[in-house]
Amino acid sequence: MKRPDDEIDDNENPVIIAGFGRFGQIIGRVLRMRRISFTALEGSVAQVDFVRRFGNKVYYGDASRLEVLQAAGAARAEVFVLALDDVDASVRTADLVRRHFPNLKIMARARNRQHALRLMDIGVRYFIRETYLSSLDLAQHTLEALGLTRADAIESIRRFDAHDRKQLQAQREIRDDEQKLIQSAQQAARELEQLFEADTTTEGAEEQRRAQAS
Amino acid sequence: MKRPDDEIDDNENPVIIAGFGRFGQIIGRVLRMRRISFTALEGSVAQVDFVRRFGNKVYYGDASRLEVLQAAGAARAEVFVLALDDVDASVRTADLVRRHFPNLKIMARARNRQHALRLMDIGVRYFIRETYLSSLDLAQHTLEALGLTRADAIESIRRFDAHDRKQLQAQREIRDDEQKLIQSAQQAARELEQLFEADTTTEGAEEQRRAQAS
Repeated sequence: MKRPDDEIDDNENPVIIAGFGRFGQIIGRVLRMRRISFTALEGSVAQVDFVRRFGNKVYYGDASRLEVLQAAGAARAEVFVLALDDVDASVRTADLVRRHFPNLKIMARARNRQHALRLMDIGVRYFIRETYLSSLDLAQHTLEALGLTRADAIESIRRFDAHDRKQLQAQREIRDDEQKLIQSAQQAARELEQLFEADTTTEGAEEQRRAQAS
Repeated sequence: MKRPDDEIDDNENPVIIAGFGRFGQIIGRVLRMRRISFTALEGSVAQVDFVRRFGNKVYYGDASRLEVLQAAGAARAEVFVLALDDVDASVRTADLVRRHFPNLKIMARARNRQHALRLMDIGVRYFIRETYLSSLDLAQHTLEALGLTRADAIESIRRFDAHDRKQLQAQREIRDDEQKLIQSAQQAARELEQLFEADTTTEGAEEQRRAQAS
């Protein structure tokens, strides 16, 4: 049983958010804080009814359909936040937006590396892997719980992050070759270890001793 | 058809990672970079076989069972990274670790607010909602794409984050009362808007004064 799409009477907003689950809602709350208006589209009836009870204005509709995007004002909006959790629907929607509304800046949630690579191909302006930054945060707190100073832990994460994003770019060419992906991952791990060692050696043994003593 | 648990021959490591999917693996790679050894437990046979092909040392086993935790060296480890994606298994495991290995510091991945509240009750040392930081990052980039300066966007996110974490603490008492949760969410939204307005007014005046003086 499918409910018909909602009529969208709110299509002059600078931002469209596709997917209003735990990811899209946070973005909506930040925009509301700054009094920036947005049109939210959500493909699950239950989710629409739930978030409406919390005072949100959100429309039931499938963002991967052109007529829904048109009704939401995609031709006039500035930013399209692609926060769908389904990978295929996300890729389909990104592709549709790029072809029909090339001026709309797409900011995308990616499920994993493979999804991120597909979004890169389509030419989305910016993407972030959905659990990536929280896992880095937990890694930082793990390092601190093991006795590293906060500054040392933060610097470790910064370096890992820079290396990982570079590696993701490099994986674009070899993505369909598992053997090469394995080699690339192993090489990246070695590079990271070496990068760190080279650096701690030059930074001086004194600092290391102090860090270990504390 | 269930494969028997792996024999764990690697149980003197300072860190145990429960759940070696996209979340746990990032933490494992950061630890490896810093040459900190860990024991990884994963409950999906397919996932174990897959990540092993990339050179990872990971054991097939259910982290919510006491004998598996004992075999993994929970009595001697310092930090327990709880990176399971299943909410109930995560809560069961956290509870087991707290009761049997009270000295082990638990760093946990939470699926959403409700999961986070349950982990707080059990007394985990630190938790982070799994998509929270990436959604804040996408919100920041959305603000920048709309023309805000990077500094302004970063400050907006910092303020939202501080408010949201405080709100999460406050929701502990009213979590089972949907009507009160709705009121609390709406009040939080109003507070955030007001916080920002009050502040931009004073900051604006301050900045103007400084500009005139210089």
